[in-house]
Amino acid sequence: MKTVSIDEAREREARISAIELRDLARPELDALEALMRERIRSSAPLIPELSEYMIFSGGKQLRALITILCAKMSNYSGKEHIRLAAAVEFLHNATLLHDDVVDEGDMRRGRATARGIWGNPASVLVGDFLLGRAFEMMVASGSMEALRVLSRAAALIAEGEVMQLAILGDVEAGEEQYFRVIETKTATLFSAAASVGGIVANCNAREVESLRVYGHNLGIAFQLVDDALDYGGESARLGKWVGNDFLQGKVTLPILLAFSRGNDDEKNFWRDKLAAQQRGTEDLSTAMSLVEKHDVLPKVLEKAKEYGTIAHDSLASFEGKYADALRGAVRFATDRKH
Amino acid sequence: MKTVSIDEAREREARISAIELRDLARPELDALEALMRERIRSSAPLIPELSEYMIFSGGKQLRALITILCAKMSNYSGKEHIRLAAAVEFLHNATLLHDDVVDEGDMRRGRATARGIWGNPASVLVGDFLLGRAFEMMVASGSMEALRVLSRAAALIAEGEVMQLAILGDVEAGEEQYFRVIETKTATLFSAAASVGGIVANCNAREVESLRVYGHNLGIAFQLVDDALDYGGESARLGKWVGNDFLQGKVTLPILLAFSRGNDDEKNFWRDKLAAQQRGTEDLSTAMSLVEKHDVLPKVLEKAKEYGTIAHDSLASFEGKYADALRGAVRFATDRKH
Repeated sequence: MKTVSIDEAREREARISAIELRDLARPELDALEALMRERIRSSAPLIPELSEYMIFSGGKQLRALITILCAKMSNYSGKEHIRLAAAVEFLHNATLLHDDVVDEGDMRRGRATARGIWGNPASVLVGDFLLGRAFEMMVASGSMEALRVLSRAAALIAEGEVMQLAILGDVEAGEEQYFRVIETKTATLFSAAASVGGIVANCNAREVESLRVYGHNLGIAFQLVDDALDYGGESARLGKWVGNDFLQGKVTLPILLAFSRGNDDEKNFWRDKLAAQQRGTEDLSTAMSLVEKHDVLPKVLEKAKEYGTIAHDSLASFEGKYADALRGAVRFATDRKH
Repeated sequence: MKTVSIDEAREREARISAIELRDLARPELDALEALMRERIRSSAPLIPELSEYMIFSGGKQLRALITILCAKMSNYSGKEHIRLAAAVEFLHNATLLHDDVVDEGDMRRGRATARGIWGNPASVLVGDFLLGRAFEMMVASGSMEALRVLSRAAALIAEGEVMQLAILGDVEAGEEQYFRVIETKTATLFSAAASVGGIVANCNAREVESLRVYGHNLGIAFQLVDDALDYGGESARLGKWVGNDFLQGKVTLPILLAFSRGNDDEKNFWRDKLAAQQRGTEDLSTAMSLVEKHDVLPKVLEKAKEYGTIAHDSLASFEGKYADALRGAVRFATDRKH
């Protein structure tokens, strides 16, 4: 009897790197790229120019990859998963374009943001264009259920962003509110990306629910790591501005933990500085030293691993290389250094 | 034999005012309002607050009304036209929110813009929320064909806005380019609004095409009148800033006509001023006097009436009070003073 021990399985999953993940779906990713290039065409030249810069700038296309792998894992042999994956990726990039306008962000993925090059108006409008095209592709996929999931996701993501805006500068917002924000603004698209992969493959309700749980928890883990990396990791080396969140007054878990563990002086520092109109580099140094003093980043990453474990275990009933890859993606999301 | 003479019919249509139009669809408009109020609810309080300010601020809801009347005219007796009308209205309001961010507009419908009160970030994100909700309602309506038309419209509208951005300040863009912009950014939603009213009522392809032609031409007429009113009419009295388009460097038909009829000095004025970073009130006075000197507004309004006539005549095969109302809406759109 040939069985695979848990250790062997873990070992195999751990070997799956981001590159291997992509290699596994190479034909689909090529089709995805071709479709996206075709769907950013427009008689307004600014649209393909800005979209190309945004979409093909070394982004990991992790959400699109999740849709593709979930469909493949569910033995889907059609073509509609490519369209849904492209819709997911367009939706994500529209959100990024609008986020950079909202945050007045100047750098993304180590390069100038689109709004830094083409300005806010172009970023708002091309974001809207990508949203429209995303919906066109969802409609073309022909699945009403996928449309339901993705249109709901589009509204929820915006809701999460508004919630985040509402607690901007409010260090006493609390962990519960923080988790609501990241569940809504980030985990929603991960769970939708996973679900529609199963939906297009005609999975049953129980399987789709497993995929939803997978995406939801992977999304939370992903955002937790993102928020930790903003205070450390290799981000600086890669051109991502460490401390961006603090400078923007964004209340994330590292701050919430440092705040709750701080003495009165420290608590006042966080309260005053986050509520202020602006924060300087000296404030950032203080913030970083407090985050380090209270050793909060390992706590945040530990929390990310907890969600990652739930995501990993939610795929227990799935087997094969695609299931291994999706489980491996959890490790990739939680172990990444940037 | 009881026939209605053309004059009698014209007379009857002319009597239909905006208020009568709305009275004819009173139960539907009440249902529309209830649905929209329900669909702007959110756990983020800023969303209903800003949306309510935007949607229920005395806007004419003309596009939603067109969907409703087209469905009624086609003997539709279900409820899904309300959902589609609400989707159309949400889509429209999302566009307005983003437009005001793009134009840095401070006044709309005689009041401060949402971005003036809540800022650009909130306007971008609540616009995205309304877009998401619009798609949710389209999906809930259950009509794939309506979804196809409306998702295509969403992408096209953004494309039109980008085209407009591209010719900003370029007085030599030409009439052809101008008409492409207004067809894409404005007429698209009018034609989609009319089409989906017929689609939900199971009209045949020929009827839906008539409705599309109606909406398309009504939309062009509407935008031409809008662009003329920016240089005159009763806009000033109603708090709309006359000259807004000029101050923003927007190249509309009044300017294109004044430019083409101008002498060399005048042509240079238009070229220089529109290409400049900013225009002052003195420049605006000059612009207004040139528009008046060359008597271009009557030309623009005449053009609007031509498109209005095409819209009117496209409904030739439809009869009854709803058809009369839709034909009357053309007059309302072209005769309005603000």
